Parts: sequence; C-alpha cells; structure tokens
Amino acid sequence: MRVDGRQNDQLRPIRITTNYIKHAEGSVYIEVGETKVICTASIEERVPPFMKGQGKGWVTAEYAMLPRATQVRNQREAAKGKLGGRTMEIQRLIGRALRSVIKPEWLGERTITLDCDVIQADGGTRTTSITGAFVAMTMAINKLHENKMITKFPITDFLASVSVGVVQEQTMLDLCYIEDSKAKVDMNVVMTGQGKFVEVQGTGEESPFSREELNGLLMSAELGIREMIAIQKEALGAISEKIGMSVQVAKS
Amino acid sequence: MRVDGRQNDQLRPIRITTNYIKHAEGSVYIEVGETKVICTASIEERVPPFMKGQGKGWVTAEYAMLPRATQVRNQREAAKGKLGGRTMEIQRLIGRALRSVIKPEWLGERTITLDCDVIQADGGTRTTSITGAFVAMTMAINKLHENKMITKFPITDFLASVSVGVVQEQTMLDLCYIEDSKAKVDMNVVMTGQGKFVEVQGTGEESPFSREELNGLLMSAELGIREMIAIQKEALGAISEKIGMSVQVAKS
Amino acid sequence: MRVDGRQNDQLRPIRITTNYIKHAEGSVYIEVGETKVICTASIEERVPPFMKGQGKGWVTAEYAMLPRATQVRNQREAAKGKLGGRTMEIQRLIGRALRSVIKPEWLGERTITLDCDVIQADGGTRTTSITGAFVAMTMAINKLHENKMITKFPITDFLASVSVGVVQEQTMLDLCYIEDSKAKVDMNVVMTGQGKFVEVQGTGEESPFSREELNGLLMSAELGIREMIAIQKEALGAISEKIGMSVQVAKS
Amino acid sequence: MRVDGRQNDQLRPIRITTNYIKHAEGSVYIEVGETKVICTASIEERVPPFMKGQGKGWVTAEYAMLPRATQVRNQREAAKGKLGGRTMEIQRLIGRALRSVIKPEWLGERTITLDCDVIQADGGTRTTSITGAFVAMTMAINKLHENKMITKFPITDFLASVSVGVVQEQTMLDLCYIEDSKAKVDMNVVMTGQGKFVEVQGTGEESPFSREELNGLLMSAELGIREMIAIQKEALGAISEKIGMSVQVAKS
Amino acid sequence: MRVDGRQNDQLRPIRITTNYIKHAEGSVYIEVGETKVICTASIEERVPPFMKGQGKGWVTAEYAMLPRATQVRNQREAAKGKLGGRTMEIQRLIGRALRSVIKPEWLGERTITLDCDVIQADGGTRTTSITGAFVAMTMAINKLHENKMITKFPITDFLASVSVGVVQEQTMLDLCYIEDSKAKVDMNVVMTGQGKFVEVQGTGEESPFSREELNGLLMSAELGIREMIAIQKEALGAISEKIGMSVQVAKS
Amino acid sequence: MRVDGRQNDQLRPIRITTNYIKHAEGSVYIEVGETKVICTASIEERVPPFMKGQGKGWVTAEYAMLPRATQVRNQREAAKGKLGGRTMEIQRLIGRALRSVIKPEWLGERTITLDCDVIQADGGTRTTSITGAFVAMTMAINKLHENKMITKFPITDFLASVSVGVVQEQTMLDLCYIEDSKAKVDMNVVMTGQGKFVEVQGTGEESPFSREELNGLLMSAELGIREMIAIQKEALGAISEKIGMSVQVAKS
Repeated sequence: MRVDGRQNDQLRPIRITTNYIKHAEGSVYIEVGETKVICTASIEERVPPFMKGQGKGWVTAEYAMLPRATQVRNQREAAKGKLGGRTMEIQRLIGRALRSVIKPEWLGERTITLDCDVIQADGGTRTTSITGAFVAMTMAINKLHENKMITKFPITDFLASVSVGVVQEQTMLDLCYIEDSKAKVDMNVVMTGQGKFVEVQGTGEESPFSREELNGLLMSAELGIREMIAIQKEALGAISEKIGMSVQVAKS
Repeated sequence: MRVDGRQNDQLRPIRITTNYIKHAEGSVYIEVGETKVICTASIEERVPPFMKGQGKGWVTAEYAMLPRATQVRNQREAAKGKLGGRTMEIQRLIGRALRSVIKPEWLGERTITLDCDVIQADGGTRTTSITGAFVAMTMAINKLHENKMITKFPITDFLASVSVGVVQEQTMLDLCYIEDSKAKVDMNVVMTGQGKFVEVQGTGEESPFSREELNGLLMSAELGIREMIAIQKEALGAISEKIGMSVQVAKS
Repeated sequence: MRVDGRQNDQLRPIRITTNYIKHAEGSVYIEVGETKVICTASIEERVPPFMKGQGKGWVTAEYAMLPRATQVRNQREAAKGKLGGRTMEIQRLIGRALRSVIKPEWLGERTITLDCDVIQADGGTRTTSITGAFVAMTMAINKLHENKMITKFPITDFLASVSVGVVQEQTMLDLCYIEDSKAKVDMNVVMTGQGKFVEVQGTGEESPFSREELNGLLMSAELGIREMIAIQKEALGAISEKIGMSVQVAKS
Repeated sequence: MRVDGRQNDQLRPIRITTNYIKHAEGSVYIEVGETKVICTASIEERVPPFMKGQGKGWVTAEYAMLPRATQVRNQREAAKGKLGGRTMEIQRLIGRALRSVIKPEWLGERTITLDCDVIQADGGTRTTSITGAFVAMTMAINKLHENKMITKFPITDFLASVSVGVVQEQTMLDLCYIEDSKAKVDMNVVMTGQGKFVEVQGTGEESPFSREELNGLLMSAELGIREMIAIQKEALGAISEKIGMSVQVAKS
Repeated sequence: MRVDGRQNDQLRPIRITTNYIKHAEGSVYIEVGETKVICTASIEERVPPFMKGQGKGWVTAEYAMLPRATQVRNQREAAKGKLGGRTMEIQRLIGRALRSVIKPEWLGERTITLDCDVIQADGGTRTTSITGAFVAMTMAINKLHENKMITKFPITDFLASVSVGVVQEQTMLDLCYIEDSKAKVDMNVVMTGQGKFVEVQGTGEESPFSREELNGLLMSAELGIREMIAIQKEALGAISEKIGMSVQVAKS
Repeated sequence: MRVDGRQNDQLRPIRITTNYIKHAEGSVYIEVGETKVICTASIEERVPPFMKGQGKGWVTAEYAMLPRATQVRNQREAAKGKLGGRTMEIQRLIGRALRSVIKPEWLGERTITLDCDVIQADGGTRTTSITGAFVAMTMAINKLHENKMITKFPITDFLASVSVGVVQEQTMLDLCYIEDSKAKVDMNVVMTGQGKFVEVQGTGEESPFSREELNGLLMSAELGIREMIAIQKEALGAISEKIGMSVQVAKS
C-alpha cells in the first residue's frame, strides 16, 4: 500500500473551486491532495509582436511557487533577479499543452495568459497546474463567447495532466512528494479528452526504463486523466458542452 | 455613505484563518474585505552576516502580489528581473514594523522571514500584510517556545496596521481600492497594543494637509487598530496571553 | 547640548550655491552642515508613456550617493546591477514631494528630472535633497517661463524638508549622522510654504512613540522648515515672487 | 522521399572528430548532417555546495549556439543578460541524460562540465549535443583513469540521442530543420547501449498523437540510436571496452 | 629563440578558411598558430536608432570565447548575466577598427554585425578577430555588391591587426599566450593596406616604456600586418581587387 | 586659434583641491578647464581573492559620470542595471595606469580603490581622472606611511595623463569637448615623471594616421604631462619628495 493509503492506480482527492479571484476573467483554486494551485486566466486584446496581423490568438502560461509552498523555504525568483530553469521548463510546458486544444483563428488577435501559482506543494505541481489552467482558460473563453466577442468556441477538446512513476518497482499514479523523491522513473503525461497524447515526458535519471515499463506508465496515466476530465466537466457544468462541439460541426 | 455602505470610521469585515499552509512554522490567510493575503513565517537557524555572533535574532519580510491580484494583470517581478520600488518600500516597512515588538536577544541567533503574498487586492494590502504577518510570526515563535528552543517569549506587544485617508473632504478608515484612488491624503499607521505609534506614513501628493486633518486621521486609525488587535487575540487564542507578559515580569 | 554644540531646535548652517553645473537647466550645490548634495534639474520635451496625450507635465527624481560619501565606502549600485530598496524609497519620496507643489497642466507635456547626488553624507541626505531639488526645479522652470515656453508659472508653493527625532529622550531638529544613529524615533517631514504637510514619515523601530512625542516632533520640524524656506527665497531672489502667485490670481 | 533524399528511417551522415580543442580534458567536434557542435569536457576537483562531503562526483552541462548558427542571427544570451528558457531546458536535459550512465561514487568528488556549443544548426542540436558530449565525457574520464586518479571506470553504459517525428503523416528519423519545422509530432529520445530509455520527450502541440504513433516513433528512434552508438564506439576505440565493464564485474 | 622556435619578427602560421558557416552572409575560420576564431558577418536591413534616416550603414562587432577556449574553463558571460569589461573593450575595438575602412554612405541603411567567437585561445585573440572579421565582412559586402544591392564597393582599404610586445628585453611580433603573460610591454596595432594606423594600444603596466621601444614595436607590427594582408588577399581572391578601387576612382 | 583661445600646445587651466571629501583617506577635486572630477581614495585592509596570501597590495579604480555632467542627460548605469562598455574601458585604464607606479610588495595586503566621479564633463574626463586619482592615491598612501602602517613609500614615480588629437589638420593638446567631437585622430597618453609611456591609446576611426602624425601627437602629450606633474607636485607639497625616493635608494 502507498504512503497515503492509496491503491497504485488511484488518484488523490481532487477539488476544483471556480471563480476564485474576482478580478480575473477566469480563475480556479485546484487541490490535488495537498498540492494547491491558484490558476487565473487573463485576457488581453493584443498578441505578441511575432503574431501580429495574422488574425490568430495566443495562449501562454506563467508558473511560480510561493516561497513557503515547500518544506524548506525557497528564495523568490524576483529577489534572485531571474527565473530558474525548472520554472521556465514548466511554464513552457503548460503553455504548449494548452495551445494544443485551441484553434487560434477562432480566438482572434488576443492573448490569454494563464498564471499558475502554487500555494502549497506536495508533488505534481506542474500537472495540477495544467489541469486547473484548462478550466480557468475555458471559463475566460466562455466569457468572450457569451459577450459575443468570438462566435466559434475555440477549444477543441478537454485536456488534463497527471504524473506517473516507478516507485519501489511499482507503477504508481499521481505521485505525492515522498513518492516522487523515491521514484526511479518519473513521467508527466498530458492527454486530451479523445485520449490522445499532447506531451509525454519520461525521465529515468536514476535508472533507465524498458519499453514494457513505459507502456505500463502510459496506461496508468490514461486512466487517471479520464477521471480528471470527468471532474473538470463537473466544475465547468454547462460550459462543458461547448468544448469540441463547433469543431465537430466543422468536420461533419 | 461610503461606496460599500460603511460608516467613515468602520473597518471592513476581517477574517483570519490560522495554520493555512502546512509546511510553514506559522501561517495565516487574512481577509480584510476583498483584500486577501497569505502570510507565512519561516524560521531559519542562522542570521544575516551583519548580525553574526551577537546572540540576537532577526525578523525580515518579503511582499509580492500574484499577477492577477489586481484589476489589470501586473507583470511578475521575477520575469522583469528585479523588484520594483513599491515592493521594496513595502517589505522594508513590514520588517521594520514587526521588529519593533521583538526582543532580539530572547529570540536567539535565528531569522524569521515573513512572506506576505497578496492573492487578491482591494486596497490596504500593506497594512493587511502587517496585521496578518504579526499573527503568523507569533505562531511560529510560539512553536519555538513550546519546543523549549527559547525560554522567554520575545514578543513585547501586539501590533496591527490600518490605512486612513481624506476622501471627498471626509476622514475615512480602512480605504478600499476605489476610495484609495480618490483620496487626497493617504496615511498608513502601525500601532502597538499599548497604543503607541510604530510607523506613521502620511502623503498628500494630491493636496497637502493641515495639523487638524493629521490629528483626525491618527484618531481614526487608533480606533481601527484597537479592533484589529481584538481580532488578532481571538485568532491566537491562548497564545495571546504570552505576548508582553515576560516583558512585564522583567519590568516589575 | 548636542554633539556639534547646537540647541535642540537649531538647524545646521545651510548654504545653497545656484548654477553649479553649467549643462543643467537648473542646478544647486546644497550644504546642510557636512551633508553636501548636487541637485540638477533636466527638462525633456516628452512625458512617460502612461501620461502621453494628457497635456500634463511630469516631475521625477533620482538619488544616489558617491561611494565614498560615507565613513565606509559603499559599493556602487551600478556595479551591483540594481538599485537598493533605500535608494528607491528615497527617490520615490523626492519625486512625490516635488509633484505636490506643481500644477501639471501648466507645465505642459514635458518631464523635469531632479538628480540628487550626495557628495558627502552626514545625516539628512533625503531631506537636504528635497530642499535643494526644489530650488533647482524652480530655476529650470523659470527658464521655461522666461523663454515663453510656458505662460503660467506652475509652482504653487515653496517646499522644504527636515528630519527630526527623539535622541536620548530629547526632541531634536535636523539630526546629524551621530544623532541619527542613536535616535529612538526618526521622522522626516516635508512641508509647504503655507505650513501644510506633504509627507510625514515617522518610524519608531527602536521604540514606539506616543501622540505627545509626535506632536513635539512635528512642531520642531515646522520651525526648521520655515527657516529653510527663507534660505531658499534668498537663493532664488526675484524668482521667488513667481511662486504661488499665478495660483493666487486664479483663486481670487 | 525526404527533402535531402534519405529514407524515413535513415540517419544523416555522422562524423565525430576527437581531441578537437587542445586545452580540454576531453573534446569532440560532432557533425550530424549540417548540424555541427563542439563538445568539451572540463574536470574540476570540486563539487557544487549541495554535494560536498558525500564522496560523489557531479556531471553537468551547458549549451549555447553561436549567434549565426541559424538562418537568422540570434542575439547572444550574454548580451541579453540571461539564459532563455529553451537553453535552460536543453542543458538540464543534457546533464540529466549523462548522469544516468555515471556511478557518482566511482568518480570521486569532482565535477565534469560538458560544454556543447552549436557552431551550425540544422535540426537536432540537443540530441547531437548529447551524443557528442557522451564521447567527450568518456575521453575526459579516461584521462582520470589512465592517470590513476580513479580506479573504477564510472561509466556504466553507452548513451546516445536522436530526434524522431511525424512529418506529413510519416514517421521520420533524425529530422533536419525543414522537417522539424513541418512536424506535427516531435520527439527526442535518449537511450543506453542496453536499449533502455533515459529520456522520452514527445510533443504534439500541433496535433495530439495516438499510442500507435508513439510506438512507431520509439521503434525508429531505437534503430537510430543503435547506429549512433556504433559510431561512438569507433570514435572511442579501445576506451570503448572500459564502458560498463567494471559494472558487469561488480554485478557478477 | 622564442618558445615555439620563431624569430622575433616572425608571425605564426596563418590559415583562413572562407565560407565556414553556411547560414552567414560572410564567414571565415581563421587560425593564427593555435588561436582559432570563427568570424561571421550578418547583414540586417536596418540601422540602430541613433543612425536612422541618414542613409548610412553601420558596422558593429561582438566577441566571445567558448568556455574551454582557455587552459582553465571560464564561466559563460550568459550564465553570469553580463558581459565582462574585457569583452566589451574588445568588441568596441573590433567594431571601431572595421568602421575605419568603410564608407557608410555607400553601404546604405543596413547593419553588418561581425561575430568573433574564439574556439581556442593562444594569445592574440583580439587581433586575430580583426584580421578574420575583415575578410568575413568583405565577403558579405561582396554579396550585396554582386546582388546589385549596392553600387559602389564601400571598403576603402585592407585592414589587419597584430600584437607586439617586449618580452625579456626583446621586441617580439605576434605573441603567443606564454609570451604575452611574460611581456613587460604589450601593444596591439591595427593598420590599413596603405600602412596607416587605425589603432595603437600600448600598455606598460609592468614597466613603462620609452619612445625608442615604442618605435621598435610599431616597426615590427607594420611588417607583420603587411604579411597578414597578403594572406587576406589570397583568401579573398578576385574580390580583393574591388577594395579601395571605387575610392581611388572617386579621388582621381 | 582654438575655440577657447588657446595655442595648439597649451593646456586648459588646472586646479587641484585636496582633502575635498572628509570621510576618504585621500581625495581631490580636480578641474581641467570645465571638466570637473571628484577623486577619492579608499583603503581597505584586504585584497581580492586572486591576490590573497601573496603579501602584495592592489590598486583599482571605478569611474562614473553624474547624469547631468553632460549637455544631454545620461541615464544612470545603476538604473540600467549594468555598466556600459565605455565605463568599463575607462575604469580598467585608470586602474592599470595607477598600478604601473606602485610597488605592490611595499603596499602590503591592502586594496586602494580610486573612485573618479565626473561632476561636469567637457572632454578629457578619463585623463583628468588619472591625473587627479594619482594625487588622491598618493595622499591616502601618505597617511598609511605617516601612521607607520607601511615602512617603504610604495609609489615609484609621478603619473599624469592628457589627451591629444588631430583637429582640422592641426595637432592639438588637451582637447575640450567641441574639439574632441571634431577630431579625426584621438589619443590618450599616460606618462610617468621619468617621461616613460604607461599607456598610449590612439584611434583613427575617422581617418587612419601616419607615423609622422603619431610622433607629433606624442611629443605634444609629453610637454602637457610635464606641466601637469608640476601642478601635482604643488598640490602634494612635501609629500612629493617621498615619491620615487625609496626606489632610488634601493637602486643605489
């Protein structure tokens, strides 16, 4: 049995609180076990220079942890004067993942920035950020849609993310911090509602892994992500039905 | 009547949730109206170089806002690569205020860092940070005391802070953002449980103010701070009784 | 008696040399005791982005100390690669203070930058900078006025600043460095020619202070500032008469 | 047929020149098609602070591109004053990959820094860097071994890396720049001589991918890496035989 | 005899490989003894802000060393977050030197950036960079000329550079690293094909030098530069004939 | 005749005020025409890491200009967050020049930092800085000598610096700003009391120069520096006699 009593293929309890920050166009407070993240979506009516004049939208993300989100206090990156490599890697991942389910032509020349701020960390902060940011982004885009600022709903599919790993020779789903620090293999998977991979990032720094192990990890991740998407749907309520619909209409 | 229906000398509703972040030695989530701040206290068993070998403790503070704590998204200072002047000014103020009620010899050679992270801003973020940080600091120091790492409780008095201002010719207590942006005079006051001033910072950039106006502002602030300290006492429960006691013993 | 033989309510000798730097539109070399500051006013025919198109002017300030202005050499902030919190706090204060006596509409869309460079420091560098910068600013604005680039003289009142403090239970005016380092309470006051407060910044980090003490400090500061303004008038000569005049005309 | 006439599962020509830089303990110039990278290995007799006193070695990597390695000149990161996110991501990947085949206890308390400087870029610069850096690291470690500074050869396996992708519905091995920019799915694989995965990083920002596609990509990568390791062996000559040997001895 | 067997007035072997980097408009790989530098010339169809609208071109240079170009590994300036004083000094020198033989009106409003990256250092990296950058610049400009983007060839003369020094009381030409580190006087000379000085930078930090020594050094440098220009001509082939010609036409 | 009525070989009026800053171990205010520089010498009882344990002293310099030292206000380097190339080049030059007349073994393990801050600039700020810094350094070292902290006076010779140039076909000494901006050739010369060169930095970016021109420039510089050294001697009074004396004793 796992350190917190879960089965190997069991997620931690997930709670998504929507409309958490009053100023943001979309916002959620997402808790996955003891990992807690505030995700806000901000809409700006302009795109970065490299995208100007193309009639397309842009989705980007920023990620940070409060200094005491962790066991030992971390120095602020603002005080250090620069973003660390881990932060940059994570925020690039979040942005890339979200863009994979967006039709930029339907969003129009505007930018959505997803801020993912980890309030408390207990493993899986990047995957939790993606799962929460997807909901915040959807809520912000829904506001554009309700205000008739866009006519086609530009989100083509659901999107969630989970970590999996090999810990003490076991394939485990949704690692908490203690498990993560003992894992020989560590993998983050981002997947769509259609069950397609958007990102697969597996690392065996401690111990290289075989094709069979890889397959087991991906299978476990897929099950976890399905559950997560069900929770996202609940949090989004009626908005859920808009996702992917226009795209299917367009296809048919 | 004020924009949110309050009397001129009425505080906004205050709520202090203690033990908000599991990893921190002390932590609170403080809400003053729609202004919401997470304050954590972190203890480290070392002091900055300029204090080494003196047998004294150090208290310092850091302050930040989440990018979307405000109506319009602010760029992260970590992304800009440096702290802004406003941030520095505020975190220097918080640290100075907290140190005024600490006996550093009784704290021993350790540092307490107060992180004040504004989740949602609606005026008074620096005063709310001080009021919340005092509670978080007290809880962390209480842990040291309970663990017998210190013998004398080194907090000599309560400490809270509030803003006051002159808005449309009226002296108002605890300005929300709308009031703050219309204020001709803007003042932040930090005061102890004994009713002594620790910081008085009044600015009349829009319109210089007279001695009478100053007196009215200080009187209003004093009343507000008394109420705030009552709420701090409730949040701290039995720990409250330790504050100032050893000092009185020492004096008598 | 004080360390340099002064009475408690006595200023140090003040000397203001105008037109000190040939390239600047306005410049003074101000000496308050052993504290010596060069203040230059530079006019640029543009305003910062956030003020464009409003037909208003902007006044801002920068502050620095030569590395060896102090007893022990300080590392240059340019070499460190960033401004310290103290510097930022001071230059924000100087800018705010000067703007309080400016009618931006009468200045037109131009920026006046006051550079305050401390050549030698002996306490009160920020208050000396404000007192000197007011004169340099007035001289630069007078040039605009003489050249008919502005028609109404946009300075509405005189402005000067002094420090006061409680040192060894005594209220003292215009602290020198030795006094400042022993002060229990330290306050900087900025006041107009009409005797109104523009900034009141009192700190009792060492020892909180009562309302009575505050009143004594403010009274002492007011007397000191009156004297300083008399010296500013002398330095400005005939230009003095322009200050506040147009405003009074407008009011009558 | 591919843009440069290759089969879908065909690598570009690979050339590894050893001892390319006279000052470095190990160095190679590696060319994979038109992608050209200088890899140097530098040995220092100390480890980073977080590893001191453990008797273990550390392997780390830095990555950069000459400004004109690319079609359009890139601004130097030294001139910008900070490393970009892509650079950080890549150098973290290279370091992690190399550490996966090192026994740090056998290396002793020393650091090996692999500098990978891209002279000319045509796709696959990070995978080429890993493949080249492995050879440079091996040569540097061999010098330690020959000089009797270490007794057990601490490299446990070969290691190489290649990119694969889905371009115009085809699974292709070792993408050149033109292919990479058209790829719907892009994956970098790092693998050991034993055929185990060290890193699998697949991205479908343009178009999410299925499990079948993933399997095809991994299979193609495996074939490519086997070929690459054969070329590494040739470049290393007799040193090749040391790799993994002591480990096998230890196991048996 | 010198450490590498040369005569005092003998250059090290020089090899210039043109078209070394496929993406650049002009590029050379220059070897002077064991000093090896890649020089690329990049053309951009715009000039810096301070030159806009004058119809003139701009030539500028950047200089860097790979971390392991030297005996001991140097930290990357990109990792430090700033350029060092030595780097800035050198790149300013290279840019200034190249501009001295350019007629900016004939180049048109475009910028040529010369990147000089030292792959391996053994003394004379700045002089080697100038000698190589001149060839790379000429090749890039020739492309503009061949493509009829400019009508007059804007290079008015050849340009090369060499170091000279006083080592163990001897005047030596083209110092290698060992000689350079023992030199009492160290001088870098940049000269045109007409034998005129563009830069003379002599330093006697170790031991001031007389007018006679200075004359000896300049004479030796002049001979070395003549030889270098002969090698540049060979590398440039037919393009050589364009240099200075239009100017002579204009003069006659 | 020159723009300010001087002969071609005539210096501007020079005034050196010693003991200008009370806190510094040595300080001068030097005026060369309208160029005005404050030079302070600070002694610290430690050397940089690369010199520890050798029993030798270190001399270094920093240079800056007040923002309004020039016709147009310059942005502060502290505000930009980095030193410019020109600043670095100049402070390296000043430090190198001063070290050329110091016997580091006689100075002991201490650092002398010369801060040269330009209050007002009118050409020749770097040469004026060197000439003034030499006097400030000498005064600081004299204090060490008088306090018996060193036994041998470690300054081996006088040192001063001047600019020369070719302006409108004329060789001119000590260029003011207007002349400098029109100069075809610009040269800075640093020379000892014995008439030996320490630095010769000539630039003909506008127009390469011949050996004859170079000779004329050097001759003019030599005459100017002789005059300057006479003025230094006057400013130093009796201290002058110590310079070079111990060295001569040692030699004889």
